[in-house]
Amino acid sequence: MTTSNPTDDRRTDEPTTDDRDPLFARIPRRDFVKAGAAVGAMSSLAGCTGLLDTDETPSGADVDGSVPPGEHDDYYAFLSGGHSGDVRVYGVPSMRQLMRIPVFNIESARGYGFDDETRAMLEESGGYTWGDVHHPRPSQTDNTYDGEWLFVNDKANGRMARIDLEYFETDAIVDLPNQQGTHGACALMPDTRLVFGVGEFRVPMPNDGRDLDDPGAYGSVLSAIDPDPFNHQWDVKVDCNLDNGDSGKDGTWFFTTSYNTEEGVTESEMTSADTDYVVAFNVPAIEDAVEAGEYEEVNGVPVVDGTEDSPLNRNSEPLVRYVDVPTNPHGVSVTPDGRYAIASGKLDPTCTIIEIDRLDEVDDPNDAVVGRVNVGNGPLHTAYDDRGHAYTTLFVDSQVVKWDIEAAVEAEMGSEDPVIEKHDVHYSPGHLIAAESYTGDPQGDWLIVLNKLSKDRFLPVGPVFPENDQLFYIGDDEAGMQLVKDTPAYPEPHDASIVRADRLEPASVYDPDDLELEFISASDEDNFVERDGDRVHVEMYNTRNHFGFSDIAVSEGDEVTIRTTNIEQEEDILHSLAIPQYDVNVKTAPQETREVTFTADKPGVYWIYCAYFCSALHLEMRSRLLVEPAD
Amino acid sequence: MTTSNPTDDRRTDEPTTDDRDPLFARIPRRDFVKAGAAVGAMSSLAGCTGLLDTDETPSGADVDGSVPPGEHDDYYAFLSGGHSGDVRVYGVPSMRQLMRIPVFNIESARGYGFDDETRAMLEESGGYTWGDVHHPRPSQTDNTYDGEWLFVNDKANGRMARIDLEYFETDAIVDLPNQQGTHGACALMPDTRLVFGVGEFRVPMPNDGRDLDDPGAYGSVLSAIDPDPFNHQWDVKVDCNLDNGDSGKDGTWFFTTSYNTEEGVTESEMTSADTDYVVAFNVPAIEDAVEAGEYEEVNGVPVVDGTEDSPLNRNSEPLVRYVDVPTNPHGVSVTPDGRYAIASGKLDPTCTIIEIDRLDEVDDPNDAVVGRVNVGNGPLHTAYDDRGHAYTTLFVDSQVVKWDIEAAVEAEMGSEDPVIEKHDVHYSPGHLIAAESYTGDPQGDWLIVLNKLSKDRFLPVGPVFPENDQLFYIGDDEAGMQLVKDTPAYPEPHDASIVRADRLEPASVYDPDDLELEFISASDEDNFVERDGDRVHVEMYNTRNHFGFSDIAVSEGDEVTIRTTNIEQEEDILHSLAIPQYDVNVKTAPQETREVTFTADKPGVYWIYCAYFCSALHLEMRSRLLVEPAD
Repeated sequence: MTTSNPTDDRRTDEPTTDDRDPLFARIPRRDFVKAGAAVGAMSSLAGCTGLLDTDETPSGADVDGSVPPGEHDDYYAFLSGGHSGDVRVYGVPSMRQLMRIPVFNIESARGYGFDDETRAMLEESGGYTWGDVHHPRPSQTDNTYDGEWLFVNDKANGRMARIDLEYFETDAIVDLPNQQGTHGACALMPDTRLVFGVGEFRVPMPNDGRDLDDPGAYGSVLSAIDPDPFNHQWDVKVDCNLDNGDSGKDGTWFFTTSYNTEEGVTESEMTSADTDYVVAFNVPAIEDAVEAGEYEEVNGVPVVDGTEDSPLNRNSEPLVRYVDVPTNPHGVSVTPDGRYAIASGKLDPTCTIIEIDRLDEVDDPNDAVVGRVNVGNGPLHTAYDDRGHAYTTLFVDSQVVKWDIEAAVEAEMGSEDPVIEKHDVHYSPGHLIAAESYTGDPQGDWLIVLNKLSKDRFLPVGPVFPENDQLFYIGDDEAGMQLVKDTPAYPEPHDASIVRADRLEPASVYDPDDLELEFISASDEDNFVERDGDRVHVEMYNTRNHFGFSDIAVSEGDEVTIRTTNIEQEEDILHSLAIPQYDVNVKTAPQETREVTFTADKPGVYWIYCAYFCSALHLEMRSRLLVEPAD
Repeated sequence: MTTSNPTDDRRTDEPTTDDRDPLFARIPRRDFVKAGAAVGAMSSLAGCTGLLDTDETPSGADVDGSVPPGEHDDYYAFLSGGHSGDVRVYGVPSMRQLMRIPVFNIESARGYGFDDETRAMLEESGGYTWGDVHHPRPSQTDNTYDGEWLFVNDKANGRMARIDLEYFETDAIVDLPNQQGTHGACALMPDTRLVFGVGEFRVPMPNDGRDLDDPGAYGSVLSAIDPDPFNHQWDVKVDCNLDNGDSGKDGTWFFTTSYNTEEGVTESEMTSADTDYVVAFNVPAIEDAVEAGEYEEVNGVPVVDGTEDSPLNRNSEPLVRYVDVPTNPHGVSVTPDGRYAIASGKLDPTCTIIEIDRLDEVDDPNDAVVGRVNVGNGPLHTAYDDRGHAYTTLFVDSQVVKWDIEAAVEAEMGSEDPVIEKHDVHYSPGHLIAAESYTGDPQGDWLIVLNKLSKDRFLPVGPVFPENDQLFYIGDDEAGMQLVKDTPAYPEPHDASIVRADRLEPASVYDPDDLELEFISASDEDNFVERDGDRVHVEMYNTRNHFGFSDIAVSEGDEVTIRTTNIEQEEDILHSLAIPQYDVNVKTAPQETREVTFTADKPGVYWIYCAYFCSALHLEMRSRLLVEPAD
């Protein structure tokens, strides 16, 4: 097998620090080298032809995406967990799952939904035990990922959530009362000034029993949220439904598709029209309307009328423009240069190209359509490299099609000529994502295709099949798209974002700049119990291998709050406070404090234990909760 | 790079069907060839020396564990999810996660804990929302995995669960009322006649508030469960605590460790004695005692007295024998030939070898100890190959030590001479598992070491670190243990079992031999609604791309049961029935029926949707739940 060290021929003028033995040129933490993977060709016999000069990169060499033990990946990929309600963090190109981040689900290993704070966050946003996460979108500054936050939607319950990328944990959830299904999720670029939740399901407003069977009175909204604090600002109402969304690059336009301009309630009604919309929201104009008080308040939220007949849309600067695109479009995304919004036809074999600046110039928004390329059957979503190519998933054809964007603008409407290549995928792809595709700086090397079906690709595991996330190397235009890995995934990774590893600065302990908590012995008075009537507060500082108390005595019926702090200073040493038969498991990372409150309603001896394997005496790290019977 | 096709030199006399091009010699489904991986050396430059005769297996060649896209793994690995409460299914050697199986957690993508049946199973076994799964043990017939079931424990709440390996789903949970922390889990071999839950936490019996602070009155039990139906049969009580467990091979003895023979309640008390026990349970003798009525009933369970002073232990055939082993032992496992039980010292650098047959012969059970090998610091668990080697994790040294079992029996007590090799792992290993290690037929090729800490091995993901499951190739004694992969894992994979792929016959649809449900149109009368007072029953048959009803009208306050059936006949086409803001998501695989019951307590329009991306018109597959206001 030949080892290959692919260089990106577009960027041979860039300096490289990668002059190490290519076999060991994997990227250490924080020392990012673009596409500098130490790789071996998968077609090993073919490659093993004595071609040992590894400075050469034979054209057409496969890139196998291997990451040797102990070496780091080049990228983080954030994959939504779909109706699992979580987000998964992968390394790319290894496709190893590095972490799960619970968002709308409850998850005991991280104690998410178990401690008082996260439980309250879930309670206050509706009290649901699941969500449907489709779109994980990282925050950007100057159209580049800034490593601050990841925003995700809940299609099941009309919510948006924010994940803190320093701690890799969900830190805010906002309920959007005028949305039932929040589908698209994206922030306003270039600087994440607002975060948008895109409402898919048309419902009465408010949805309190009025207009039950009068679909003409239903509507959808686009909701705007301040990124920090994560507060709901305003909604714009439209008559049609809304679907996926993406932002322009200059802070003006936000785009969504609409597949149900018919305002139908059955499948046949929803698919009856030949065209639907890309809906373009002029965000500054909407903000002006809010500022001017031109809204109705619904469920406490200012709702601006953005429907087609709204007087606000008859101004010289309409709030919302409706662009016709062929039927039931699904994905819409903006090219890295910010020039075009590209929508996929889903039930039509084309992608439609809208020139964004023309939306400010034309009277008829359909005049902003500058291209339409025939890509194949069931086009859903489009991602980008940095060489002017678009990659579109074809759900029906089970393919990804690579095409040339400018060629499509220059070609006749409906031409197939801009298509460069089609590659089979396995099977029925939904989203796809290229590295930093939806920023101003796509990396152009790795592409993940999220296939909804895996069929025969993996060992059988019963009637629930894994999905199949396939990794392609797309950095070599001459060789074409190269399938590198099949990755089974628990249903359903819906969409993803791939972020260069050096964009993030995760903390490995809580308050890393301020390591305050040092050794506190179990007998120290920092550990204390306070009682106020039948309310008991327990303060405990824990370290290897003991809890702050070896016994805690309470009475049946007491409401007990335990405030538990992990005083470790060393990263990766976690503790939990698990109470058998009391449904309690609260994790604390080093220097972290969490509280948990429960009613001591069962008398007896309950062995508090640490569910993280923290030391050789982990099993012996225990404390007794003694619940004295009431009678 | 040279491709290598390692053969197992112990078994060259075995027939092989693997005469294909070794590059494409991956194992298709059900056509298992032992260790027949198409592999490439990781040290590719070193291997690329023109050695293209791939029938040869150069000694010392690495085995990289790669599985090309579309090819299948050779093994299933079942990894416990620890305090996540789930089980994960991996492919080996790819180490790709193929599936998660929720057990004690609730999990929306599979609708586990959402439909009436699984919700009732969780409710009736305590109503907890988490568990702590440590030991996934497949059923065996004739000391060989039979692909029927996987049994797991819940350390948090004293429960055992059974997973059906045809459907890869949890189908039974039993609450063990006299156990608080069920730690060890294993079945009685050779034929899985009983399943055991091993009680770790000493508590009063019953634990109802009596003897709260009288640890001398506490005790632990070993619980026996009928595998099918999954019913609790009896307990044996001991004074000490119990920990891990494993079965002998001939249906007589079941072994557990005890690290707290001191009967202490603090860490220092639990570690004060120089020796603790391997506790050996004579299962037929215990069954005779149960049969003879020699038990006390506690919480409705027959509890046999197996304490050291029990009259039943003074018989010629004691029920329980207590073997001294050095301090705070942790793992105990039986060698593939059924000859020895080997216990790890944890706080002592030795493994102790007990010759099982001698337990029937000796008056003093300590006379059954036939060897003690000095392996290193913090020995926890021991796995086996088929060449007489033991592999023991050293938690403190962060190593795995390979040693020779018979050499250890022949060596002086406490000798290091039987040690063959030590290999660093990263870091702090808990369990390890070799392929089919705990059967009569270990495969001797792959070993997974489950490290509790990963520290610097992966891209940083915040204060909760992944654990690190490392894959070793152990099939080449001359080359020694070869580290192949680092695999990050969500906390905490605690233990695993590795099963040859051809042992399982998973179903890909429900009732695969009896595909009854064919196309039912949305207007068919098989779909119906029945009302009885304020109880509404909805029967719906669903297929691409519609539900059985496009509208369901109910009144506020109705108790609604929806019985939903997926009538697809094609595998991998799942549907769910998701109801926004009603916390409902019920999945149905092809030919599966599930019921969900909820109270329609919120008036309005709620769009029932399918959360599995089932077709190009998936988004349009919807139905309206219309909840008429009560007033």
